[in-house]
Amino acid sequence: MELHQPAVEELDLTTILQALGDPVRLSIVRELAVTGEQVCGSMALSVSKSTRSHHFKTLREAGLTETRIEGTHRHISLRRDDVESRFPGLLDAVLQPQPAAL
Amino acid sequence: MELHQPAVEELDLTTILQALGDPVRLSIVRELAVTGEQVCGSMALSVSKSTRSHHFKTLREAGLTETRIEGTHRHISLRRDDVESRFPGLLDAVLQPQPAAL
Repeated sequence: MELHQPAVEELDLTTILQALGDPVRLSIVRELAVTGEQVCGSMALSVSKSTRSHHFKTLREAGLTETRIEGTHRHISLRRDDVESRFPGLLDAVLQPQPAAL
Repeated sequence: MELHQPAVEELDLTTILQALGDPVRLSIVRELAVTGEQVCGSMALSVSKSTRSHHFKTLREAGLTETRIEGTHRHISLRRDDVESRFPGLLDAVLQPQPAAL
């Protein structure tokens, strides 16, 4: 099974920003930045299975994450170096500790 | 007339990313970063007047821009310092010259 994953030179800023502009997807990206590769199903997310799949797909198609299939599991990891090489500083800015909302 | 413009401590990362994740809004932000304050109606955008108004509203409500009303004109400017103070490096990363898409 082939999953579409854009090449680094295909990464598009608007698409990346759209993918990051969702609280659940941003939390996935934050978690992957800390933990490294994870099995998709093992991530604790307070959304339904279909919503979860949609978010993983959005992140993958934007080029923020890589999905690796191994047997019946999907492993997801952050394409930090790829995103950094194309949009330097963007992920660092997004992943920095957030100021508390007032 | 009062326009809602969030205080700097109310700026929300997801909302900012959503606002930036649109090609027209991103082009408005880029232009304002170069030109400084502009009269809304004077910006050359290839969208209808209502779409344009929607984009200006989205940017203002996200806290990316400030709108100042003077007579019958609205003047729009980028809240670069406010966004920088809350999300350091984010606007610089977004505004840097983009690599050509292949």
